[in-house]
Amino acid sequence: MQVRSEETRNKILQSSVKLFADKGYDATGVAEICDASDVSKGAFYHHFPSKQSVFIELLRDWLQGLDVELGLVMSKAHNVPEGLTAMAGETRGVFNGADGRIQLFFEFWQQARRDPEIWKEFIAPYRRYQDYFAGIVEKGIAEGSIKRIDSEAAGQTLVALALGIVIQGVVDPAGAAWDRVMRDAVHFLLTGISKSTPAATQEGR
Amino acid sequence: MQVRSEETRNKILQSSVKLFADKGYDATGVAEICDASDVSKGAFYHHFPSKQSVFIELLRDWLQGLDVELGLVMSKAHNVPEGLTAMAGETRGVFNGADGRIQLFFEFWQQARRDPEIWKEFIAPYRRYQDYFAGIVEKGIAEGSIKRIDSEAAGQTLVALALGIVIQGVVDPAGAAWDRVMRDAVHFLLTGISKSTPAATQEGR
Repeated sequence: MQVRSEETRNKILQSSVKLFADKGYDATGVAEICDASDVSKGAFYHHFPSKQSVFIELLRDWLQGLDVELGLVMSKAHNVPEGLTAMAGETRGVFNGADGRIQLFFEFWQQARRDPEIWKEFIAPYRRYQDYFAGIVEKGIAEGSIKRIDSEAAGQTLVALALGIVIQGVVDPAGAAWDRVMRDAVHFLLTGISKSTPAATQEGR
Repeated sequence: MQVRSEETRNKILQSSVKLFADKGYDATGVAEICDASDVSKGAFYHHFPSKQSVFIELLRDWLQGLDVELGLVMSKAHNVPEGLTAMAGETRGVFNGADGRIQLFFEFWQQARRDPEIWKEFIAPYRRYQDYFAGIVEKGIAEGSIKRIDSEAAGQTLVALALGIVIQGVVDPAGAAWDRVMRDAVHFLLTGISKSTPAATQEGR
């Protein structure tokens, strides 16, 4: 019964990603989500109190997956510059895994502007990632691999860089090899903030 | 008569920015734009063939202003790192000038996804800015201030960084002093790509 329930929940989430991305959040109704996921309205409301809660769950879901991935990459690295370089190398995975969900980023924001509940959910991960990367930079300073820089500013820089590249990658997929851009960008930045020059990636082809 | 005409055009553009940002592009009709700008339908269609053309003009308008500003800042600098540092110092101006227009960024993208005409307009500036900044980096390499790096990658990095910071600034204005983040971020990056360490900005407060 537990498995069945999990399955229903996943079906609802998967259909919703697609519908929200294709038609937009506003134009998608609960009835339509039920139709597309072959789930009864009763089952829908058993799992989610509202369409908004599906939306928020999608955002959380996506970022939770990303968190696990980033933590794993970092835990395998010998030092912070190596860890950040490895994270940058995982960008292809982010793009692939994100597909329709990144489209949702824009839809989320449209909703967030109008709905303080969604705004709070929308804003939380940025702040969390900024803290997360500031912490990584602090670890680098403590281990002696990163210069004594403002770790908060460096964390904000890393998040901005990643966000900017991901958005450009979504908006203009054919405009560049975005996974390579991510590696190069992080390499440039690491050259600026590391004590020794970090291992070259694809630079200088 | 020429002045009068220019005035009408500006009134239409100003009302449209506000309506598109507040209500969204889809929900805004030409009649409403005419009402808000106190302009007749005849006058509207004299200036713009369609609502879409107003939308595209807003995008061009905004970026043209930015182009002029960036060119001016660069022309006053003694070398490329100094010029890029000065550009980063102008961020507050970008945020202030942008107000409702940056909100439109998201609206533009929603439309661009559905309309190849708008998509082409939407994508062109990114590619143009990438080329523009790649050119600046090349100039820096030629003058000996920047290391011999991949100028295309560096241009893409600069655009991504700026885009990421501007978007975060719009989405979460109180989350950080975004103009300071821009200065710090560009300083970190310049430290990585310059031959000598660039002049410190606000880092290390």
